[in-house]
Amino acid sequence: MSRIQEAKKRAAIASVQLVESGHVVGLGTGSTANYMIEELGRRIREERVRIVGVPTSIQTAMMAEKHGIPLMTLDEYPHLDIAIDGADQVDSNLNLIKGMGGALTREKIVDGAAETLVVIVDESKVTSFLGSNQVVPVEVIPFAITPVLDEFATLGGTASVRTLNDCRFITDNGNIIIDVDFGPISDAKQLEKDIKMISGVVDSGLFVDMAKIAFIGSGSGVKKMEKKRG
Amino acid sequence: MSRIQEAKKRAAIASVQLVESGHVVGLGTGSTANYMIEELGRRIREERVRIVGVPTSIQTAMMAEKHGIPLMTLDEYPHLDIAIDGADQVDSNLNLIKGMGGALTREKIVDGAAETLVVIVDESKVTSFLGSNQVVPVEVIPFAITPVLDEFATLGGTASVRTLNDCRFITDNGNIIIDVDFGPISDAKQLEKDIKMISGVVDSGLFVDMAKIAFIGSGSGVKKMEKKRG
Repeated sequence: MSRIQEAKKRAAIASVQLVESGHVVGLGTGSTANYMIEELGRRIREERVRIVGVPTSIQTAMMAEKHGIPLMTLDEYPHLDIAIDGADQVDSNLNLIKGMGGALTREKIVDGAAETLVVIVDESKVTSFLGSNQVVPVEVIPFAITPVLDEFATLGGTASVRTLNDCRFITDNGNIIIDVDFGPISDAKQLEKDIKMISGVVDSGLFVDMAKIAFIGSGSGVKKMEKKRG
Repeated sequence: MSRIQEAKKRAAIASVQLVESGHVVGLGTGSTANYMIEELGRRIREERVRIVGVPTSIQTAMMAEKHGIPLMTLDEYPHLDIAIDGADQVDSNLNLIKGMGGALTREKIVDGAAETLVVIVDESKVTSFLGSNQVVPVEVIPFAITPVLDEFATLGGTASVRTLNDCRFITDNGNIIIDVDFGPISDAKQLEKDIKMISGVVDSGLFVDMAKIAFIGSGSGVKKMEKKRG
C-alpha cells in the first residue's frame, strides 16, 4: 500500500470510531470512503455494532453490500446521525470541494441530511484556498450544457465537460459533469450560490459550512480538526 | 371552441406577430403554446417566414414537427431572439408561475436564453398575488424527495408529489415534480432563490424578472402588457 493510501486509510479508520450502535450513517463515495466502508464492515462483523447505511452512489451501495452493511434510503431515514465522506480539497474552515468521483449531488443531499458531516482526506487535500489547482465539478442537465457553459464564463471560470472513454461522463442521476476552473476562490459561499442559481445546474461540488469534523491522514498519523463556530 | 380556448388562441396569434424572418424562436409547452406553434406553422407555410424553433419539451418538439417548424437545439443556438410560452399565473410585474405541464426546467433554460420572453395566457391566469389558489411546481431529483419535502415544510409550504395514473409523474429530464402550496407569495424573487438553493431541487416554476411582454386573451380581444423597468 502506497503512502497516500495509508494516509487515506488512517483518516477513514479514525472517523469510524465516531459511529455508535443505532446510528444511521451516510456513506460517502470514493477511494477514501471505501476504506471507511471496509472498517464499518469490520466493526459490524467483529464488534457487533448495529448500524444502517445510506449510500451516496450506486458504486458505494455495491461496496457497502459487499462489506455487509445494511442499506436504507433517505425515504426511510431522512435524518442521519452522521455522514462520513471524502473530499478533493479542504480548507481551514472545513469548506470542501467534492465531486471528482461524480457523486456530488447525492453526496450533498445525504451529507446535508446528517447531524454531523465528517470529512476524511489525506493531507495532500488540505489547501489554504479552495480552487487552487482544483476544478469545481458541477452537475448539469444535459439539455442545458451550452447556456450553462456561457454562464460559467460570465462567472470567470474556465469550463470543460467531463468525459469518460471519449463519451460524456453520466452521473447516477442521468446528468453530466462540467468541471470549472475558477482559480483560488475568495468567497466560496457566494460562488456556491451563484453556481446553484444557474438554470440547468443541479448542484456544485462546493460544500460550504457543511463539514463539522475532519480527519486528515498523513504518512505518520492522523489529525482531527473541528469546525470553528460562527 | 370554448370561450377560454378562444382567449388562449387570441393571445397566441397576437404574440406570433412579433416573430420576424431569421429569428430563432423558443417554443413553449402547453395548450396556449400549441396555438402559437400552429400559427407559426401557418406563417411559415403561407407567408414564407423563415425561422428556427428551439422546443422546451419533447411534446412541443412533436407538435412543432407536425406544423413544419424546423427545430434546433440550444447547443446549436444558445442565444434566442424570442421565446413565446404560456403560464399558469401572471402578476402585474409579469412574474410567473409555470410548470403545470411539467416542463418548467427546460422552459426556464430556453426562456432564459431568449432576448425577449413573451408570455401568452387567457385572462383567468392574471392574479394580484402569485400563489393565490396556485401551487408552485418544483422539479426534484427522485433520490431527494423526502429531505426536499422537509425543506418545503420549513419554507411554510404544503407539498405533494405529482402523480399521473397513480404513478409519479416523470419529467423529460427523468425527475419528479413536487407541487407546493405557499398561499399568496409576498416576495417571489426571494422564494425563487430559497427553493433553487435546496439540495436536490433542479428548478422551480417561479419565473421572476424574465418575461418582458404579455398578451392576455379574453372572450372579446387581447391586451398587451409590457414589463415595467427597474
